[in-house]
Formats: sequence, structure tokens, C-alpha cells
Amino acid sequence: MSRFFSEKYKKLTPYTPGEQPRGQQYIKLNTNESPFPPSAEAQRLAAAESARLALYSDPECRDLVAAASEILGVSPDEILFTNGSDEILNFAFMAFCDKDHPAVFPDITYGFYSVFAELNRVPYTRIPLNPDFTIRVEDYVGVGKTVFLANPNAPTGIALPLSDIENIVRSNPDHVVVIDEAYVDFGAQSAVGLTRKYENLLVTQTFSKSRSLAGARLGFGIGCPSLIRDLNTLKYSTNPYNVNRMTMAAGIGALTDREYFLKNCRATERTRAWTTEALKTLGFTVLDSKANFVFAAHSKISGKLLYQKLKGSGILVRHFDSERLTDFNRITIGNMEQMQTLINTIKIILGDLS
Amino acid sequence: MSRFFSEKYKKLTPYTPGEQPRGQQYIKLNTNESPFPPSAEAQRLAAAESARLALYSDPECRDLVAAASEILGVSPDEILFTNGSDEILNFAFMAFCDKDHPAVFPDITYGFYSVFAELNRVPYTRIPLNPDFTIRVEDYVGVGKTVFLANPNAPTGIALPLSDIENIVRSNPDHVVVIDEAYVDFGAQSAVGLTRKYENLLVTQTFSKSRSLAGARLGFGIGCPSLIRDLNTLKYSTNPYNVNRMTMAAGIGALTDREYFLKNCRATERTRAWTTEALKTLGFTVLDSKANFVFAAHSKISGKLLYQKLKGSGILVRHFDSERLTDFNRITIGNMEQMQTLINTIKIILGDLS
Repeated sequence: MSRFFSEKYKKLTPYTPGEQPRGQQYIKLNTNESPFPPSAEAQRLAAAESARLALYSDPECRDLVAAASEILGVSPDEILFTNGSDEILNFAFMAFCDKDHPAVFPDITYGFYSVFAELNRVPYTRIPLNPDFTIRVEDYVGVGKTVFLANPNAPTGIALPLSDIENIVRSNPDHVVVIDEAYVDFGAQSAVGLTRKYENLLVTQTFSKSRSLAGARLGFGIGCPSLIRDLNTLKYSTNPYNVNRMTMAAGIGALTDREYFLKNCRATERTRAWTTEALKTLGFTVLDSKANFVFAAHSKISGKLLYQKLKGSGILVRHFDSERLTDFNRITIGNMEQMQTLINTIKIILGDLS
Repeated sequence: MSRFFSEKYKKLTPYTPGEQPRGQQYIKLNTNESPFPPSAEAQRLAAAESARLALYSDPECRDLVAAASEILGVSPDEILFTNGSDEILNFAFMAFCDKDHPAVFPDITYGFYSVFAELNRVPYTRIPLNPDFTIRVEDYVGVGKTVFLANPNAPTGIALPLSDIENIVRSNPDHVVVIDEAYVDFGAQSAVGLTRKYENLLVTQTFSKSRSLAGARLGFGIGCPSLIRDLNTLKYSTNPYNVNRMTMAAGIGALTDREYFLKNCRATERTRAWTTEALKTLGFTVLDSKANFVFAAHSKISGKLLYQKLKGSGILVRHFDSERLTDFNRITIGNMEQMQTLINTIKIILGDLS
């Protein structure tokens, strides 16, 4: 830290992203990326755009918004694109939280929420999950704070039914409820259809998981036009050209190629079912995941040791060094071949223990 | 504005970017883009990366940092890349300004500085330029505030010599001085060489102008390692994957192809000299620009009317609706053919007046 760093950020603990090794030496099951390449149309459009980079990108993202509004069934003024969904989540913390509107989210969830709250000096409460890692819906009903819920939740993968989400939104009419649907496409129910009914609902999604564009950085939010206008005020006061030309083009390609998107989502769900069964057969506790990862613990080996042994065998998973999570590892659902290698490797690791 | 929008941002007036028409119906001389395409190597590397977008980008930007540190002659820990230079400028306002460290910048300069100050609720002072639009260096010597200077300045294009910059940096040892060198490659002197001498100096640059990558969104800052660490703390608390894979690849290509970069900068300087002379011959006052634009006024026609008439003739320039600037237009230096069309069009417009 330099002696010039503002007091207000001196105690900030930044988010720690998962390891991003540069080479391909690992089977990478640690950051919930897609095992499938971007759609051919996304690749083609993005590559073509590389010739046109001398001109600024459109700050209004009009072509991308037009494609999205048609395919997702929303109006252009109900959607905002950002440089990954982290950016729109930060905007939501800025726009809808302050001393009079503290934030609330589960104690176990996407680790960035507390960082955004600290960054923006927003008071926040973390509500413990149930012992089985489910969200206690009644804790959020009428809570009277700005609610942030990942649905499915991370790193558990557990999803709330839409009726519970609606209950929370309806019972907090004076506070925005942000539903972070980064993982919704793998079998959970989206709340996008509720955004016209509730002016206090913001749904965020990302192209990083189900649309195989983590490296392009594209996220978006859907909500009523006045919420989107607030977020745009922050975008235009921060980084109006936040989405680059190639990423916009890739986004259009990924949206258009709907068949490929659905095929990959269903393949991931099948592989998740297979992986869950295989892990359970080996004695793991596996939470019921609707995401492209599973959260699994084994009574015979600590989460950390398993993480280390897998890494030594060329497989990266994600271990969280916090008390309630330390028995577990979050394992991204890759393709079948990768998951077979994972299971075979775990068999060897468990065998070595006995 | 929604009823949920936080009090603290209700009075925020966002930055207004220049018009970004989607088609190619205009000769676009309004947002200081390069008339030259990105280098072939930048295009090739960016296009190739489109196949690898399923994986996150490297938050440390290691390959890009390695290329930049070699070519720009700095250490990897002295440089930070961002999603355009607007992002690093915002980080600098966040990191190095607060109630005890107010910001100071000229009254006529990049319009985003005051937006960043308002966004971060940083007190700021705007110091008037001299009547000839030059910066009064003595106003900043020992000013005891966090200084933001665009060099060359915008929209004037006027550059300060390095000795003046050093004087300002040396005389404010307890405050960071940010030199925004968005336009430095077109004939001004860079302060990058001073960053090892002064721990309070941060230099920012962009790939949007001289490297023909406005649509890729890539900016960077160079300063001593502790300043860069502070900015990284904010990056990792905001958007760790802020630079996407394709843009990083394009950046490496643009840095590597140094001959193409220099050739384009020199061509722009020659075209600027030609344009300046041609405008002066037509009776314009043209400020002495070291940037890829000129700032010009004519006694016979208001800035706004000329802007409108040029737009009607298919040429976009930038007019600023503020009192001291209203006589002027900021005209980007395009290629020679575009500037010849501009001059011929202005001749017709002026001819119609008499």
C-alpha cells in the first residue's frame, strides 16, 4: 500500500479469483467455465469484428440489446449489458444500497457480495444458511433491506423455487431484490418473467457459464426501465464504453445460436447427474446442484487435502478455506471424459488412504 | 430515476460520449479515433483468441504485461491494464482522492474528471486556463491536492513540456499527480520516464488513439509499484477479469508491431500540420495541437452552426456547448482524403455565408 492510498479503502480485502494457470497443464474444474467452445457463430462474429476496432464500441450496445430483447423476450429499455456480471452487481450495490438501505445476503454465497459492500461502504448483514446449506427463505421475507441472492446459490449449487423468490420480492416492496442468476440455465427457474410484475426486482445473468464466453466478459441485468436507467446513470459516470466491440459481437452470436446453447446446458445437466452419482458411490456427500458445479465432501479426507492431491494429479478444483466449507470442494462439471478422469483419480486418492 | 436510487447519486450528471452512429454514413471526426485499422498482428491475435473464450481471461494480464514491460521499458509491477483508460482514471480518483485529498484539474479538460469526482464524492477545484487556453503551470506547483492533467490537454490539444510536468510532480510530494497521456504519441513528451524518480506520479495511456483499438477498450497506468498495488486493490474489489481475452491479444499485437504504430503517428502529425495550415488559410484560429485533433474557431460562423452544417454535409465533428468553448469545434485528424473533404466542405459552407 502506498502512503497516498485513501483511508476509506485501506482495510479493503479484495476478492480472490480462482487460479488461472496460463498453460493447459490442468483439467480445469475450478472456476465453473464451460467445457464447450463458444458457438461457431459467436467465434465468427467476434473474429470479424477485430478488423473494426479502430472505432469505439456503441455505448448503448444497440445491436446486442436488440438481439437480446428479441431472444429473451424483454424490451430494450429493460436490459443493460456490462463488462461481466460483476460490473452490474457492483452497480447494483452502488445504486440501491447505502446507510439507509443496508444489504443482506447469505453467509455462504458468492464471495464478491461482501467485497462490493465493503468497497461501497454499505452496511450489510450475512444471514446463516440452514445446516443443510439451504437458504432460510423466511429470513428474507419482509427483511426491509436490499437483498442479494444467487439462485442457484454458490458454492452450494442449491436453487430456490420461483415461488420462494417471488415471496421475497413481493414482501420487500420498498427495497430492491437482486437475483444473481449466473448459473440459472442448468436447471433452475429464472425470475426474469417476474420483472414486469415487480418494479423492485433486478435479475442478473452472465455469458460466462452456459454461453461459453467467460473470457469475453459479458453480463447483463433485466429489470423495469427505471431500475435500468439508474444503473445506466452509473455506467455513464464510470465507463460508458464498458463493452468492447468483439464481445458485443460474440454475445450476439451466442444468443442467436440457441440450439447449441440448449444442447450444452442439457449435456452439462446429464454429466452433473452422472458425476453426482459417481461421487456418492465413492462415499461423498454431494449437495443437490442446479448449477454447472457440484459441492462435495468426504468423511475420510479433508477438503484441502483432496484439493491438493487432485492438483498434484493435474486436476484443479476449488477449495474455500472457511470453517463451514472446509470439508468441501466445488467441482465444475466439465465434459464426460474430464469427469471420468476426475472420478478415477479420486478412486486412486481414496485407495491410497486405506 | 427509480424511487430506489441511492440519495448519494441522485444529482449525478453522467458523462456524454460523442455521437456513435452505427452505420458508416459520416466521415467521423468527432471522437478522436484513428483513421488507420488496427495492426494486422493485433487483428490476427484477437481473432484467434475468439476460439478460446470459454476460459476466463487472466486477471493478472501476465502475457500483456510482459509484452508491455519489454516494449515500454518498465517492470511488470509498474504497470496495470484496465478496460479502457477511463477505468484506471476512475480507480485513481477512488484511490488517491477523498475529503482530505481533494482533486484539482483545469476548467477546460477531459470532461470525465468532474464526473469521476462527483461519482466518488470527492471535493474538487477547477482552475481556469489562461485566455490563450494554456495551462497556468504555477497554479499547480505546490498546490497540495491530487492533480489530474491531460497532456496534451483536451479539447485544446496543447501540450506542456516535460519540465513543467516534473515541476508540478516534484512540488507536490504528498499528493499523487496523474498525467493522462491519451494523446501523447502524436508529438508530446511522455512522463513515463519520470515514474521511477517520483513515487507520486501516475501516468495513464490508452490504446484507443495511436494504436487504433478504441473498440477493444484497453488502457493502462504506469507508476511506482506501491501505487500500482493500490490500483490493483480496487481492480480486484471491482472487476478482477476487467480485460477480456481478445483485447489482451489485440494489445499484444499492437505493442509488438511498433513500426506500424510509429508510421501511423507520424502520418497523423503530417496530416495535422496540413489541416492546421488549410484551416488557418480559411481564417480559422487553430490552437497549437500535439494531439490527433485540432481545436478551431472562425470569426464568421459560430461553432455550433459549423458543426451543424458539417453534419448536414456528412462530416461529424465535436462541438462543446459551454461558454468558453462555444466558438470552437474539435476536429479529429483523419486520413488525408478525409481532411481534404473537410476543408473543401468548409470552403463551401463559408462561401455560402458571404
